Amino acid sequence: MAVTFPRGFVAGTASCGIKAFTAGATAIPSGQQKDLCVVQSERVCDTGGVFTTNKVKSASVVIDHLHLQHNRVQALVVNSGNANACTGAQGFKDALLMAKITADHLDLDPDQVLVSSTGVIGRYMPMDAVKSGIISACANMDAAHGLDAAHAIMTTDSKPKLAELGVDLGGVQVRIGGMCKGSGMIHPNMATMLAYITTDAAVEPGLMASMVKAVADQSFNQVTVDGDSSTNDTFLMLANGAAGNKPVGSGSPEAGVLQGAMLEVAQRLARSIARDGEGATKLLTVRVAGAASRDDARLAARTVASSSLVKTAIHGGDPNWGRIVCALGYSGAEMAIDRLHLSIGGLTVFERGAGVAVDLGAVRAVFEQPEIEIVATLGMGDGASEAWGCDLSEEYVRINADYTT
Amino acid sequence: MAVTFPRGFVAGTASCGIKAFTAGATAIPSGQQKDLCVVQSERVCDTGGVFTTNKVKSASVVIDHLHLQHNRVQALVVNSGNANACTGAQGFKDALLMAKITADHLDLDPDQVLVSSTGVIGRYMPMDAVKSGIISACANMDAAHGLDAAHAIMTTDSKPKLAELGVDLGGVQVRIGGMCKGSGMIHPNMATMLAYITTDAAVEPGLMASMVKAVADQSFNQVTVDGDSSTNDTFLMLANGAAGNKPVGSGSPEAGVLQGAMLEVAQRLARSIARDGEGATKLLTVRVAGAASRDDARLAARTVASSSLVKTAIHGGDPNWGRIVCALGYSGAEMAIDRLHLSIGGLTVFERGAGVAVDLGAVRAVFEQPEIEIVATLGMGDGASEAWGCDLSEEYVRINADYTT
Repeated sequence: MAVTFPRGFVAGTASCGIKAFTAGATAIPSGQQKDLCVVQSERVCDTGGVFTTNKVKSASVVIDHLHLQHNRVQALVVNSGNANACTGAQGFKDALLMAKITADHLDLDPDQVLVSSTGVIGRYMPMDAVKSGIISACANMDAAHGLDAAHAIMTTDSKPKLAELGVDLGGVQVRIGGMCKGSGMIHPNMATMLAYITTDAAVEPGLMASMVKAVADQSFNQVTVDGDSSTNDTFLMLANGAAGNKPVGSGSPEAGVLQGAMLEVAQRLARSIARDGEGATKLLTVRVAGAASRDDARLAARTVASSSLVKTAIHGGDPNWGRIVCALGYSGAEMAIDRLHLSIGGLTVFERGAGVAVDLGAVRAVFEQPEIEIVATLGMGDGASEAWGCDLSEEYVRINADYTT
Repeated sequence: MAVTFPRGFVAGTASCGIKAFTAGATAIPSGQQKDLCVVQSERVCDTGGVFTTNKVKSASVVIDHLHLQHNRVQALVVNSGNANACTGAQGFKDALLMAKITADHLDLDPDQVLVSSTGVIGRYMPMDAVKSGIISACANMDAAHGLDAAHAIMTTDSKPKLAELGVDLGGVQVRIGGMCKGSGMIHPNMATMLAYITTDAAVEPGLMASMVKAVADQSFNQVTVDGDSSTNDTFLMLANGAAGNKPVGSGSPEAGVLQGAMLEVAQRLARSIARDGEGATKLLTVRVAGAASRDDARLAARTVASSSLVKTAIHGGDPNWGRIVCALGYSGAEMAIDRLHLSIGGLTVFERGAGVAVDLGAVRAVFEQPEIEIVATLGMGDGASEAWGCDLSEEYVRINADYTT
């Protein structure tokens, strides 16, 4: 299941009370009080990671940067309920201690452990609880606990987020599994999102690091829920080689296949985040084609998917294509209004510089579906990309007005 | 009153049914059905304007750019209810016709008239109604109609927005007056905002054009309600010389005084927009000091004021300073977490890299005020700026989910 679907990965979880220490009662779905997980590989993993671009970084993000430099990671420890951000020197000590306790109980070195935290900013970690949670999780590691791990990393998520895929790599079937969390504060720069993709593929050292940015750019960085980006965002890819295939080298055909499969898992996870945006009732997919470049396409797609006015229109089932055109216009992507072609759910609503007389009732019916696809063809080149978002509902406001420090 | 407070300006308004043609019933406050105004100066004005940076521009914005090149403006015609954007060639014809009809009835040339439109995107102007409205407005021009004009430009605004100021310019008292509209779709780039500031100061030709960008950058461009920027944003400054002072030249001490007074009026108008954000219940002022540059300060202040999570926290009366620190971190402004000092309503909540143990009840009381001031001192230099925003409420979602194309 999820990160333990690939061979050679096990996980353990604990309910150690971190969420009870720090989060408002309304923010945590009842029955989801698991708040810590440990994931371990039987072998050293080739590991790549990308992290938040926020200038304020959680202690765990800084520690992970350091530990990744040695590229001998074999375990993760993740807690939810407390972000360990804006916690000064104490925060660094606590993050290092989390790595050390985990390493001690799994017979590893501390720099073989990566640490992630998510939750409320600005509170010190309740380290007694965290310590007992790590000990408890490490005492109960099992390949069957992948789903539990996905539960343990949730904060305002309404459900655990998983994806799995098998792929043939030079005649050997390798497995890829992933889990993530994130609903509010999700933005192109991966705000308050944690994502982990594991594979049992054997790869040459450094391959995961060379792939992780490209995978993130076409998946998690195209998810947008509310425009904020957080202190703790983390995306890690770990390959442990348990499948026994010939190690995949950079630039090989197998590397392309593997990267495509990792991207597919990442995109499934990214869409699950968009679908689970705080208060979201609809998944919005924005496809942009014909952009002057892929970067332009990414920018345009993200901008439409994150427009508050587009998001509220979608929530209201309002076929307000003017807001989509407007968002494309301020996205910064090159465009010319007379070349734009715009469709909503397959219905052309705008072309040749003006709106098309369509049956507004049909457009409205499209907007009332749980999944809505907007396709914008810019006519400027051959750049293409997509982005995912959700509607903006009254419920979003309620959740975030009440979620307490 | 407002734009007719300075001598030599008159205004006329009409209720010609544009709003009835195009807008949903819920979007227009009842009793506010005026939808067209004409403002005329007795003399040719020195005029400066800045417009939306959206790549999709309303026909009126394009026309105004052309007309401003001659710098002999003597009248404005503004309608609400229809943005005349994404209307192709027909839109340009209609905007030009609006200028021509106005010019004909005021005995001016068409290029002496500037045109603004605001409202729904993507519908053709109901030109029969517009024509009768212009004729009706031009037949009833009066200096007493400044307030009526401010009403006529409203869309989802809950109230008209005006400001007035007198200032001594080399021994002569000159008057400055302004009106604006805007609530939803307000962003740093002046989304769906129309603002007009008039003065009876005499100035040398070109002075208004040289000042208008700087005034906008420190006022309207620092207002943020929902992150969208529109096709129609327009800010115009007109000086007609009716006060009879010695014409103010660029770089003179009087130019500084005049620009300061124009800015004061612009800032009052900008704050009134933030306060009247769709569904807003609270005005948020974010002051940033100690930034590496003024641009950094502007960026940081705007980013905090536009964070959905900060806005919902303020709505909920939630003293969640972590969200403010987080927004500063992703703003792009230079910062170092250990140099940051943050206060909310005068209470220090963050310094030296960590949160301060404050009485959360006192912070909460601050957040529950109708006006809230956040002050961030970055400790990186001497750049300072401020920005204004509002809380994000369930009502915002309701307004924008229902506002129809």
